[in-house]
Amino acid sequence: MMTSEPYSAKLSKTGMLLPYNTRTERRLADLREYFSDKRAVEDALSKGENPLIYVVYEISRKTEGELNVGCTIIYPGKVGDEYYFTKGHFHVKEATSEVYIGMSGEGLILMQDKEGRVFIEEIKPEMIVYIPPGLAHRSVNTGRTELVFLAIYPSDSGHDYETIRKRGFAKLIVERDGRPAVIDNPNYGRD
Amino acid sequence: MMTSEPYSAKLSKTGMLLPYNTRTERRLADLREYFSDKRAVEDALSKGENPLIYVVYEISRKTEGELNVGCTIIYPGKVGDEYYFTKGHFHVKEATSEVYIGMSGEGLILMQDKEGRVFIEEIKPEMIVYIPPGLAHRSVNTGRTELVFLAIYPSDSGHDYETIRKRGFAKLIVERDGRPAVIDNPNYGRD
Repeated sequence: MMTSEPYSAKLSKTGMLLPYNTRTERRLADLREYFSDKRAVEDALSKGENPLIYVVYEISRKTEGELNVGCTIIYPGKVGDEYYFTKGHFHVKEATSEVYIGMSGEGLILMQDKEGRVFIEEIKPEMIVYIPPGLAHRSVNTGRTELVFLAIYPSDSGHDYETIRKRGFAKLIVERDGRPAVIDNPNYGRD
Repeated sequence: MMTSEPYSAKLSKTGMLLPYNTRTERRLADLREYFSDKRAVEDALSKGENPLIYVVYEISRKTEGELNVGCTIIYPGKVGDEYYFTKGHFHVKEATSEVYIGMSGEGLILMQDKEGRVFIEEIKPEMIVYIPPGLAHRSVNTGRTELVFLAIYPSDSGHDYETIRKRGFAKLIVERDGRPAVIDNPNYGRD
């Protein structure tokens, strides 16, 4: 029973994964409901600014028991004082986990369980971060260069973005005195 | 339902994964039934030589839906004209796959399905190799330095070493005129 072929792929430090089969691009307008400082978002968009926040290159598979490989590039920048980040999501299939491998740049992985308990791990080159089953995860670029990391996760994980879009994470990662700081999200859970 | 905590780990190019929870060491004597040139194996062992062939550092998990992370270091060398390799195994749970990420050195990943069909992919830094469900896999160091790569696979995959120990792979990877060559295994399937 062979339903799927092996492959090799080239991974560059700039985040290109070749050959990929999916490329996802997220700009500020795609993330307007996710950043905390709504005024900063609308100010930028009203001026015609719609910067690229992140890009994901993926090699996705479909058969049961397969693993997807994705490479995410988060650009450096802030909206208000909040660092650029990925939307963040729970997996639809709860009994699935994910492994991140830092390639370049530096950032934080913000994780949260269904009860709102938060975990934070650092991501950078030569660092691995493990996201166990049941935790929503968002990646945050706290550096001055692109944050690039590899992600491996089951092909049937599914993405639940809605829970985070509506409720947010309990913590925000913002710049304070030129450095990253973790603060409470004043709007957390306001559906 | 939180049964498992997230973690971060440090991954060095030399193959150390810190903190690991399992370290597996394989010496020539552990692989005496796997190398093709039995005389070369027994000659070395009878002289008291029992070189280290490979070491695996792993972070293993136990909960359903989790992923293990392993880092394998295969030393450079040959037994007869066959390059040092890992035992190779099928997963016990067939619907599981695996992703390899090259860290340093160079080698080949030898894969084989239950019908004996062989696939070979190159592994080296900035290269990813994907092993789909149902394929046995062995890693071969064809270079002059340590081959180091990261592996990510489901925690409940299980390892079936017996099928390969008894039947071998259909192909051998040997040195010919100073370069790697793939040849038929004359003893393949002789249980």
